[in-house]
Amino acid sequence: MSGSMKLALVQLAVGAQKTANLSNARTKVVEAARMGANMVMLPECFNSPYGTQYFAQYAEDLRATESSESLRALSSMAKDSGVFLVGGTVPEKESTTGDLFNTCTVWNPQGEMVAKHRKIHLFDINFPGRMVFKESEVLKSGNEITEFSTPWGRFGLGICYDIRFPELAMIAARRGCVGMLYPGAFNTTTGPMHWELLLRARAMDNQIFAAACSPARDIEAGYQAWGHSTVVDPYARVIATTDEKQDIVYADLDFKLIQEVRKAIPIYTQRRFDVYPDVSA
Amino acid sequence: MSGSMKLALVQLAVGAQKTANLSNARTKVVEAARMGANMVMLPECFNSPYGTQYFAQYAEDLRATESSESLRALSSMAKDSGVFLVGGTVPEKESTTGDLFNTCTVWNPQGEMVAKHRKIHLFDINFPGRMVFKESEVLKSGNEITEFSTPWGRFGLGICYDIRFPELAMIAARRGCVGMLYPGAFNTTTGPMHWELLLRARAMDNQIFAAACSPARDIEAGYQAWGHSTVVDPYARVIATTDEKQDIVYADLDFKLIQEVRKAIPIYTQRRFDVYPDVSA
Repeated sequence: MSGSMKLALVQLAVGAQKTANLSNARTKVVEAARMGANMVMLPECFNSPYGTQYFAQYAEDLRATESSESLRALSSMAKDSGVFLVGGTVPEKESTTGDLFNTCTVWNPQGEMVAKHRKIHLFDINFPGRMVFKESEVLKSGNEITEFSTPWGRFGLGICYDIRFPELAMIAARRGCVGMLYPGAFNTTTGPMHWELLLRARAMDNQIFAAACSPARDIEAGYQAWGHSTVVDPYARVIATTDEKQDIVYADLDFKLIQEVRKAIPIYTQRRFDVYPDVSA
Repeated sequence: MSGSMKLALVQLAVGAQKTANLSNARTKVVEAARMGANMVMLPECFNSPYGTQYFAQYAEDLRATESSESLRALSSMAKDSGVFLVGGTVPEKESTTGDLFNTCTVWNPQGEMVAKHRKIHLFDINFPGRMVFKESEVLKSGNEITEFSTPWGRFGLGICYDIRFPELAMIAARRGCVGMLYPGAFNTTTGPMHWELLLRARAMDNQIFAAACSPARDIEAGYQAWGHSTVVDPYARVIATTDEKQDIVYADLDFKLIQEVRKAIPIYTQRRFDVYPDVSA
């Protein structure tokens, strides 16, 4: 938990061609690295359109990097750029069971996978006439909390709708993580309502950094992503954001802010685990 | 959890004279009731200036309504106005031990006390050169989570800094409360930073109403209250607020919004207590 790090969120324009998506992601990761990024995050479903009808078609077996086109691409992007790469999410098919998952992999600058997170909370929402989506029709949910280590500290992972469940960030922060990273794809109904508020709430309550990376909005797609990839600091200030178009959002994470805010507002020493339980215990 | 209720937050101008404070509170509670309020909330320390140097001087023994000037006043305000009265907070002195607490009492329209909450998390903050305050120098903390019932549903209570600890609202909501009520007195450092964000976060994560009532700002006082008494709905929308001057904030709480948002964003059925514990269990 020391020093500072440049984080880049690649708000990628995602289309129907997987190979083109992987190629575009590579171009943007290389660009971000050239701009000094130490860690780059891609969005949810960066290699496929987002929709229950697409998951099976685009899914890959992620048990081995070699056997997955998308994992091979992510590994080489990380290695060739020399960055930590939070590889957005890709649809995963477990070949033994046929089960589908929405899965995030994380890569170190040597191109080695250091974490794999399967979305725990599936996105099932129902705003009649505005936005209906039910991931659980086709996906299975993950069952594990995921963190990974970097030279700047540990980070927790969540995928999109996972951010609505405060326990993941509470547990990660109390275990010592310095930030929560969420590849996500909110929409034009829930995005303006809660996207930034969720990030600020997780950062404020846990006095950590919180960042979410969305795809760019494709006005021809069935699912209209909110965009607005955003980074929030441990005081809950938005320190970098953007609109809905393709973009790279950069933020310098100054990790001494974590100690500073925890000294100013010392909730870390004031929690009353004699009155309520500690979810991280 | 049905129907609607008019909530009034009395953002009271508080001075050094306890009897005048009680009298002014009465005037405003009567006014709010006349405007149709079913429930009225007073601010933290509504009968005394806020400051560690004042607590002992203004403290009363709250074991019996009859023996406390402030409780007698609150009981008769509630009864004479026919409202539920969340009686802000008053400094409490437990006469057997001499311990001091920051305590909220709640009164039904018959003038009977239905809840008493002692602030669980004491306000100890330290922004060097801007805002230093240490309640724990003179106060003891409460050890109990507090709720009370009304014809519109159950409500949870917290006092000011208690709002920074998300567990209280998580527990209350999961036990069936329809709202969290926080008499509070943030300041001009932490107020603009987090006051509204905290209320919106508690409402969003728990899909309940959240309201906080501050004293008006007294520019001659040692402690400059933020004001901005605010009500937030279960979608995390600010539905009523004000500036820093004396005012009464009114909001109609439409409790069917709770079921509506929980159907649209069904986090209540999607939590993964197999992956992390339930703090309310």
